[in-house]
Amino acid sequence: MADLERVLASVDANLDASLQRLFALVRIPSISTDSAFAAECRRAGQWLADDLAGLGFAAQLNETPGHPIVTARSDFGASKRVMFYGHYDVQPVDPLDLWNTPPFEPALVTGADGKTRIVGRGTADDKGQVMTFVEACRAYLAVTGTLPVDVTFLLEGEEESGSINTPGFVAANRETLAADVALVCDTNMWDAETPAITVSLRGLVHDEIVVKCANRDLHSGYYGGAARNPLHVLSKIIADVHDETGRVTIPGFYDDVRETPDEVKAQWEGLGLTPEKFLGPIGLAVPSGEQGRSIMELTSARPTFEVNGMWGGYVGEGAKTVIPSIATAKISCRLVADQDPAHVREAVRAFIRTRIPVDCSVEFRGGEGNRAVAVNHDSPDLARAATALTEEWGKASVTIGGGGSIPIVGHFKKQLGQDTLLVGFSLDDDRIHSPNEKYDLTCFHKGIRSWVRILAALAG
Amino acid sequence: MADLERVLASVDANLDASLQRLFALVRIPSISTDSAFAAECRRAGQWLADDLAGLGFAAQLNETPGHPIVTARSDFGASKRVMFYGHYDVQPVDPLDLWNTPPFEPALVTGADGKTRIVGRGTADDKGQVMTFVEACRAYLAVTGTLPVDVTFLLEGEEESGSINTPGFVAANRETLAADVALVCDTNMWDAETPAITVSLRGLVHDEIVVKCANRDLHSGYYGGAARNPLHVLSKIIADVHDETGRVTIPGFYDDVRETPDEVKAQWEGLGLTPEKFLGPIGLAVPSGEQGRSIMELTSARPTFEVNGMWGGYVGEGAKTVIPSIATAKISCRLVADQDPAHVREAVRAFIRTRIPVDCSVEFRGGEGNRAVAVNHDSPDLARAATALTEEWGKASVTIGGGGSIPIVGHFKKQLGQDTLLVGFSLDDDRIHSPNEKYDLTCFHKGIRSWVRILAALAG
Repeated sequence: MADLERVLASVDANLDASLQRLFALVRIPSISTDSAFAAECRRAGQWLADDLAGLGFAAQLNETPGHPIVTARSDFGASKRVMFYGHYDVQPVDPLDLWNTPPFEPALVTGADGKTRIVGRGTADDKGQVMTFVEACRAYLAVTGTLPVDVTFLLEGEEESGSINTPGFVAANRETLAADVALVCDTNMWDAETPAITVSLRGLVHDEIVVKCANRDLHSGYYGGAARNPLHVLSKIIADVHDETGRVTIPGFYDDVRETPDEVKAQWEGLGLTPEKFLGPIGLAVPSGEQGRSIMELTSARPTFEVNGMWGGYVGEGAKTVIPSIATAKISCRLVADQDPAHVREAVRAFIRTRIPVDCSVEFRGGEGNRAVAVNHDSPDLARAATALTEEWGKASVTIGGGGSIPIVGHFKKQLGQDTLLVGFSLDDDRIHSPNEKYDLTCFHKGIRSWVRILAALAG
Repeated sequence: MADLERVLASVDANLDASLQRLFALVRIPSISTDSAFAAECRRAGQWLADDLAGLGFAAQLNETPGHPIVTARSDFGASKRVMFYGHYDVQPVDPLDLWNTPPFEPALVTGADGKTRIVGRGTADDKGQVMTFVEACRAYLAVTGTLPVDVTFLLEGEEESGSINTPGFVAANRETLAADVALVCDTNMWDAETPAITVSLRGLVHDEIVVKCANRDLHSGYYGGAARNPLHVLSKIIADVHDETGRVTIPGFYDDVRETPDEVKAQWEGLGLTPEKFLGPIGLAVPSGEQGRSIMELTSARPTFEVNGMWGGYVGEGAKTVIPSIATAKISCRLVADQDPAHVREAVRAFIRTRIPVDCSVEFRGGEGNRAVAVNHDSPDLARAATALTEEWGKASVTIGGGGSIPIVGHFKKQLGQDTLLVGFSLDDDRIHSPNEKYDLTCFHKGIRSWVRILAALAG
């Protein structure tokens, strides 16, 4: 135990240096979904590989058809090995004019509530979270010259753009990535005081719908009243997807969705997550999803259909009396339990096709999607991590279902036989994927300390 | 008649020079709706003022709070004076990648059908049409040193952005603009062989609808299923506007709309405008408007509701799993007969407001709009112009209803007491407001000749 205390003290003493390293990584605009930023993605990956090599890990940048993947391994001959997964890529930053500070100029901002926050794109998702683990390793190595368990890093650069090359990389590198358990730091705490381990994640399938009517844009004076408007067609389709109770009307959409067991519902009710508490901070009051279900159920145990983006016609300054020829929507469905992404995608497409007028057409541009995943509740490592978190935060950690998707977790189980512990220190109000993303300084600091404790605990 | 024949011969002999002048005007990117092009708008106005001054007109550029207005007057002491109205501004050019030639580099292109077309933004709407009249005056002046009727020009630079300052200018300059009849060249022929005079125009009201839900963009994994999506809200509203028969469901929308008289319907039926003929060239087959009404009725005698542009959420490359906070639509309604723009706008807004969820909000950013206008069927000038057109084209000219709006025509009647003759040489396939706008060389050439004949005819 003396080692553990000394390592924790080292974390505290070196927090400023840890922050400066996170700042350096956040300054690199590694937006993976926009090809204009490809070189910046590579630069972020190289930065991490160099940093880990400096700590003594056998680190390298592995080429893929997309952005490179960082791997790094320690080799202390420990009796146990963990594989830590994270991603160095970030979301786009638009709309840029809503940012209070430049997204890639990280800074500390202390609010009226006295709390200090690290602001900038990626501070929470996922650079800040990744660096909590890197800094925990750094402190252990600095104080003890070794690690309680051996560590393999797998840091990808395409998480925000669908992790298209990572499953193939995992399958092709089973030996390099072999470990007893996977660790992922890309999830939330329950609240600012209560640590959490996420034990289920929703799957995801996304698609782009392109509705085409006339063979060119039309003058609305000349053709208005006679020519089909694809924005009307697409709006009608989107409107038809949900009934007045919030339920998705697409035939087959709810196939393979299981009802949440009553005991789980009861546990969730105990957490007291009211619509007011969940929606109030974002300026809303009324849950939009299926009526009669709790917030926890709606956001983690039920599938969804959302339009993530939609456009068509004239979107510039002033007015333009045009009937556009094309309208487009980017949509995505969150999946739960045993839903098959391909089945859901086909159900959605069939629903849309029947709503396209005979003289119009539709094209789809979508990806493969991924299934929901669930983590084994009885794992000893889950219990060890829960105890370590409880010790650090002074409050019992909780197990929760996650609404988002981390597709790679399913591949870890399938390709590597690894269960995954999802431990993260992000908060509901971190504005990930939005302007003014932030990560609380306390989350960063106690996150590093939490990983120090978890590394010690996993050694058994 | 010797004069007329000599002037027509001069038009034929100088067609190349006429074209070069049109090209020079088209090269000026005078996009009025985008403030970035304000200097170019002024340059186009100045080009016209200079050209008309060179012809001996008392020409000037009149300042307005927006783009300047060109006026020019001849003073031959003729027994009659006409006021010619046109506009030198053009529509935006997006999407630029759909243009086969650069929009502001006019060129002659001869198609597989052997027809030569002038291509470029504004070649038809309205620079090409304006220049048919200017070139007719030029030919008359060159050959005879005078004009059959005195001419006042009123050329504005804000027609494509709502003519916001022109009504005020007209009201403030009643003496300068006094004339016996107004002429406008901004409409279509019936077809490539049949000249037409437009005797009614639809009105227009446009609005921008901004639906706001959460106070920031949200992660669809974390909030999806519980947080309201403004793209869903807006799509539902748009979908609700039309019923399954194509009729607008907005209460009060059809107030003041009169049924087209049976004799007019019969005349329209005689023109043989089938859905196949009207919609076929634009790749469509089924009229989208109110069932049971003809194409002529739908496009000129019935009001419409159209979404001209709509956007929200992520519209860049790749996917982004966001629930946007804001969704926006630009909409416009074409108006007929006695519909009051303010009444229609309020009916639309009331319809929308009742469909906004209690925890969301809506903002409107719209203009005033304008009423539909009708031209007196019994005007002697209408008969004179019809005869002149019939002589030039060798085919009887027809009188039609126009689907578009030329708001200023209403002001000519109200402020100046002038009836307006709407004579234009554009064709259905000119792609005005779209990529690859064109104006047939024959339309330009015979358009100039038509105005020569009309000027002679109007002198009586």
